[in-house]
Amino acid sequence: MTDSQRQDGRAADALRPISLETDVSKHAEGSCLACFGDTKVLCTASIEDQVPHFLRNSGRGWVTAEYGMLPRATNTRSDREAARGKQSGRTLEIQRLIGRSLRAVTDLAGFGERSIRVDCDVLQADGGTRTAAITGGYVALHLALQHMLDLSAIERLPFSDRVAAISCGLVGGRALLDLDYSEDSNAQADANFVMTGAGGLVEVQATAEQDPFSRAQFEALLSLAETGVAQLVAAQQEALGLAG
Amino acid sequence: MTDSQRQDGRAADALRPISLETDVSKHAEGSCLACFGDTKVLCTASIEDQVPHFLRNSGRGWVTAEYGMLPRATNTRSDREAARGKQSGRTLEIQRLIGRSLRAVTDLAGFGERSIRVDCDVLQADGGTRTAAITGGYVALHLALQHMLDLSAIERLPFSDRVAAISCGLVGGRALLDLDYSEDSNAQADANFVMTGAGGLVEVQATAEQDPFSRAQFEALLSLAETGVAQLVAAQQEALGLAG
Amino acid sequence: MTDSQRQDGRAADALRPISLETDVSKHAEGSCLACFGDTKVLCTASIEDQVPHFLRNSGRGWVTAEYGMLPRATNTRSDREAARGKQSGRTLEIQRLIGRSLRAVTDLAGFGERSIRVDCDVLQADGGTRTAAITGGYVALHLALQHMLDLSAIERLPFSDRVAAISCGLVGGRALLDLDYSEDSNAQADANFVMTGAGGLVEVQATAEQDPFSRAQFEALLSLAETGVAQLVAAQQEALGLAG
Amino acid sequence: MTDSQRQDGRAADALRPISLETDVSKHAEGSCLACFGDTKVLCTASIEDQVPHFLRNSGRGWVTAEYGMLPRATNTRSDREAARGKQSGRTLEIQRLIGRSLRAVTDLAGFGERSIRVDCDVLQADGGTRTAAITGGYVALHLALQHMLDLSAIERLPFSDRVAAISCGLVGGRALLDLDYSEDSNAQADANFVMTGAGGLVEVQATAEQDPFSRAQFEALLSLAETGVAQLVAAQQEALGLAG
Amino acid sequence: MTDSQRQDGRAADALRPISLETDVSKHAEGSCLACFGDTKVLCTASIEDQVPHFLRNSGRGWVTAEYGMLPRATNTRSDREAARGKQSGRTLEIQRLIGRSLRAVTDLAGFGERSIRVDCDVLQADGGTRTAAITGGYVALHLALQHMLDLSAIERLPFSDRVAAISCGLVGGRALLDLDYSEDSNAQADANFVMTGAGGLVEVQATAEQDPFSRAQFEALLSLAETGVAQLVAAQQEALGLAG
Amino acid sequence: MTDSQRQDGRAADALRPISLETDVSKHAEGSCLACFGDTKVLCTASIEDQVPHFLRNSGRGWVTAEYGMLPRATNTRSDREAARGKQSGRTLEIQRLIGRSLRAVTDLAGFGERSIRVDCDVLQADGGTRTAAITGGYVALHLALQHMLDLSAIERLPFSDRVAAISCGLVGGRALLDLDYSEDSNAQADANFVMTGAGGLVEVQATAEQDPFSRAQFEALLSLAETGVAQLVAAQQEALGLAG
Repeated sequence: MTDSQRQDGRAADALRPISLETDVSKHAEGSCLACFGDTKVLCTASIEDQVPHFLRNSGRGWVTAEYGMLPRATNTRSDREAARGKQSGRTLEIQRLIGRSLRAVTDLAGFGERSIRVDCDVLQADGGTRTAAITGGYVALHLALQHMLDLSAIERLPFSDRVAAISCGLVGGRALLDLDYSEDSNAQADANFVMTGAGGLVEVQATAEQDPFSRAQFEALLSLAETGVAQLVAAQQEALGLAG
Repeated sequence: MTDSQRQDGRAADALRPISLETDVSKHAEGSCLACFGDTKVLCTASIEDQVPHFLRNSGRGWVTAEYGMLPRATNTRSDREAARGKQSGRTLEIQRLIGRSLRAVTDLAGFGERSIRVDCDVLQADGGTRTAAITGGYVALHLALQHMLDLSAIERLPFSDRVAAISCGLVGGRALLDLDYSEDSNAQADANFVMTGAGGLVEVQATAEQDPFSRAQFEALLSLAETGVAQLVAAQQEALGLAG
Repeated sequence: MTDSQRQDGRAADALRPISLETDVSKHAEGSCLACFGDTKVLCTASIEDQVPHFLRNSGRGWVTAEYGMLPRATNTRSDREAARGKQSGRTLEIQRLIGRSLRAVTDLAGFGERSIRVDCDVLQADGGTRTAAITGGYVALHLALQHMLDLSAIERLPFSDRVAAISCGLVGGRALLDLDYSEDSNAQADANFVMTGAGGLVEVQATAEQDPFSRAQFEALLSLAETGVAQLVAAQQEALGLAG
Repeated sequence: MTDSQRQDGRAADALRPISLETDVSKHAEGSCLACFGDTKVLCTASIEDQVPHFLRNSGRGWVTAEYGMLPRATNTRSDREAARGKQSGRTLEIQRLIGRSLRAVTDLAGFGERSIRVDCDVLQADGGTRTAAITGGYVALHLALQHMLDLSAIERLPFSDRVAAISCGLVGGRALLDLDYSEDSNAQADANFVMTGAGGLVEVQATAEQDPFSRAQFEALLSLAETGVAQLVAAQQEALGLAG
Repeated sequence: MTDSQRQDGRAADALRPISLETDVSKHAEGSCLACFGDTKVLCTASIEDQVPHFLRNSGRGWVTAEYGMLPRATNTRSDREAARGKQSGRTLEIQRLIGRSLRAVTDLAGFGERSIRVDCDVLQADGGTRTAAITGGYVALHLALQHMLDLSAIERLPFSDRVAAISCGLVGGRALLDLDYSEDSNAQADANFVMTGAGGLVEVQATAEQDPFSRAQFEALLSLAETGVAQLVAAQQEALGLAG
Repeated sequence: MTDSQRQDGRAADALRPISLETDVSKHAEGSCLACFGDTKVLCTASIEDQVPHFLRNSGRGWVTAEYGMLPRATNTRSDREAARGKQSGRTLEIQRLIGRSLRAVTDLAGFGERSIRVDCDVLQADGGTRTAAITGGYVALHLALQHMLDLSAIERLPFSDRVAAISCGLVGGRALLDLDYSEDSNAQADANFVMTGAGGLVEVQATAEQDPFSRAQFEALLSLAETGVAQLVAAQQEALGLAG
């Protein structure tokens, strides 16, 4: 392994193998199994004909997300949140992030007083579960709204853009794209970037795990993310059968 | 469709297509994706080096199960139990049943003071989730103990027999094996039978959904179950690479 | 004690002394203190003029049950469920069973959009609490509906039959009726049968506590239960002042 | 009914019929069914061989109480606290009061590092449940400690005195002893007094339900309570088979 | 220090330095920072245009209180109740007391179908937090209703009187007014008195912490309280800019 | 007001008036009331002589934070989290952020196996509560460790640097520093930056509230933050009585 290679042989700016398998659920209006390497997240979008209280009679709909992880999705089994009786701070933080990200590209006035709930459940985790959830969650949401369009329940797809997400981090002094779990565990800093197809920033979250990082280091991570998200958006287009 | 056919063309005593895919988890010591038709249950077995308080210094281990259903595993989305903050009575009832069933064929003195937790998570539901969970849960448990045997952590597999489960029901006056969701919804009575490879009964649960049922009707269900479980045990043997 | 006797001198097919004392509550519309030997369950039926959401404007009512056990009803004190902040899986399982059993003989369209809640609280436990709860719960429910009839709120009692329940088990190789706690603790298998006055089966629950049991053993338990339930239904008739 | 009579014919300073039935539980070390008129509270005392964390290795024991009310103990059914998942403020307040009252006359250094838990469960409520609970709880506690004495686990009963409690209130301008529910509902003020056999005050709780009350009115309530508690302590002595 | 002095030099019948600072919140309709020596309680009154269910269409409003303590308000840090997931019995007991006390002097028919919620949050504790909360809570409530009067939302202030509260206790054989934490910790008995400006009693709570107390001792505490509350009501008048 | 002015007259790159008042708690080892304009956060640091389970016998300590908001800290009253029985996702997210930020500059091996808990309670909110909490939380933590140093419990202060935080946002097309609530409510994007005294980045969180933002816009926010944090660190130094 040369200095420029990662444990799995990837270049610093390479994504893991990405797959976005659609229509994986018999029941959900839209669904996508998003795999970033060994990370597998099942995303389903469910449409309900009612909105939260604060939107009643507003003519607007709502998009929200929930996130969960199967107990043995991880290397060491975690307690089941349903059994512990509450969701962890990490879970709540991630599902709030997914929901904000999806709403950022969706015209909430464009599909009536309906709620779309995007469930992102991690079947297997190997780093980057929240970014796979956002990327696959968009696909599931898109398919659910396409379903409504096919039924003539709406007249056009209410999206202003696509949205996808990727993690980056500083590991051993180098900026790397799309960290797997072992890289993430050793990162000096890690960051998650949510961006649109047009390259706009929707969410930035960067955290020093050890020493603080410099502005230049942060810029390097952001540049990597721009590369990665562009590829993810292309993969979304392909999964949705749309021209790039 | 003749009178003797079911909606999907099955005979009254036919199982749905069954598959028991093993080693589907990168992390778990044992795993199995159990599919009974469109019902898909991911079963993982996790070994921990400690036992519940009541077994400390007993030289015995413990096997327990947890059951969950992804929110959109069903036709209509259910609330996430982790978000509601508690598991439903149905969930608790099913996971207690799975645990008892697995313990019935496992020698708890045969693998040291360890706990094995079998997680059964329903990815997609179409009737019979608890029976798929028991059938697949046994495979995952077997693989986890085989894993310990391969590592010489135990000297032999601590099983007295196999265990599998199937549902039966009275629908439109006929006794049917392995109900799918639409049959289950219309059943006059439904029953779940947990049995061993040798044909012993481990658990019987039968419920009148409409009128009470007669002893003769119950006997007919039990006979169907004997047929079904024999096939499931054969499928387990094949999945585990064992001679029938 | 000869081989054919049980610790308390009963024959294998004998019930413990049964009493069904009615009108034990100053407040409830119907009430019954059901005693099976030393097991004492206070059952009250409460009528409310509203139904759960899913029945609104359906013209139908609802019957549901709740089950509880006083902390020192048992030999060793249990934590109070209200203090622990949740009901155990066992509690939820039992109260779901009681509710289904009572609904099985009640015409839900026969008493308007009302809910009847049957509370079964175990004052003292010595085995068979769920069967005493069902047997006494029916009496309380019957009295509450009789109360409505007396007030001309309904025109006839909306029952298709009586319902009662009994436990049986395999102890020391013998099939025994109506296990007390010490027998239950040593049972190879135990079963609960809910049956109607006409002998129809409403619920069957059988569990191997040690080795699996055979079909023939199960049949023996079922035959015992038929004998026991017939006596319980007669006791209900007497308690309700009805001709046998 | 003359002006000086109450609805049930009692004089202003008369208790309702009081009964303190002992040894009503097959399992508990001490038990008492305390009835103040139609108010019935089942009190059990349970001994455990461990103490709360803050008393370990102190050589001292602990006495605590829990209070509950069956859902249909009252005229209108209340939700079951175990089902709601938490105890109400009223419940917590009452059980803290019972615990403090019992500890006030018990030498906690006199029965080793043991905990005695006194459960007071209201089977039927008609006003004064907390005072019946304290009065009957003392009897149950006394019997449990007598039980230890009989087993030679302690050398003497660790009581400094008896303790009992009674309610009083201002109704229609008059000070009345031992209010029933209908009196309590119409009271301008109500008060609960916990006192020892020697007449010492342990707890005083008085509340204006409507207008504030004067010092003179309060004094009248206190005088009534002194009369009532003296009778209750005599009833305790009799129930315990002790000389007055 | 002579025998007649307390640790801080106060006479037995002296209050600690009292301050009632008003309008300390930018947002609340009424607010008061109540300090009794080192005890500091922030009281805010919030008006909402709706009432609890049981008062809808009654033409009446509601006043309620909530009480909380910052984790490090005390000498030893306490767990945060929001993190523990429930309020302690002590918290619930105190906030019920505050609510009852405020309602005792407020005409609930005098401000429409509105709710006023008085939050009493202890920033620093040194004994007497509940009495400071009641005394300051009244000021916050008064200011909120004055605010409604200024806006002509009501025509007059709906108060029948002022209300304030003080603690007293028996320490080292002496009756002392307004205990601080160190005195409270050593008290043989402590009591809280809630009284009106006119001297009427609203709430009395007295507890023997060690030996029972006599009627004469209780009277001494009550006399001290009358002195203390008179001064507190004067301080309220001054804080509110009203003539004494 | 010219185009370049904000509602309160500040320049785009100006902080609100900042104050960091120290030693505001009688009990806590370290405390600071941090005010950013009308936002007031009370920060206390509490030292405990034990560490979480995962650090036992590691020779290392732990720093953690909790965040809360008084119910009427905000313009519209929020439900009390202790009463609702759980902390919101927002609360958990903020307290995790505060904890990570403080640990980033603290040598956890430098103060033994002790835990320091920093409570940040918002007394009044007007935007930027989390940044005030981090900035004031550092001061409280510093004082608590200074307290240990004064007691010779440690030999030197275990800090690698200072840490402070500030918010920035895009409002009406302009990048502004230290948003107040009304600015925050209208922001197209808002961001929080946690930085060290040496200018290193510890945490970056940026969110598009409406349209996505560009890389250039993000850079402008970051530049503002660098200015702001430098001033906050200087204020911390002054509050701590240290040379700039």
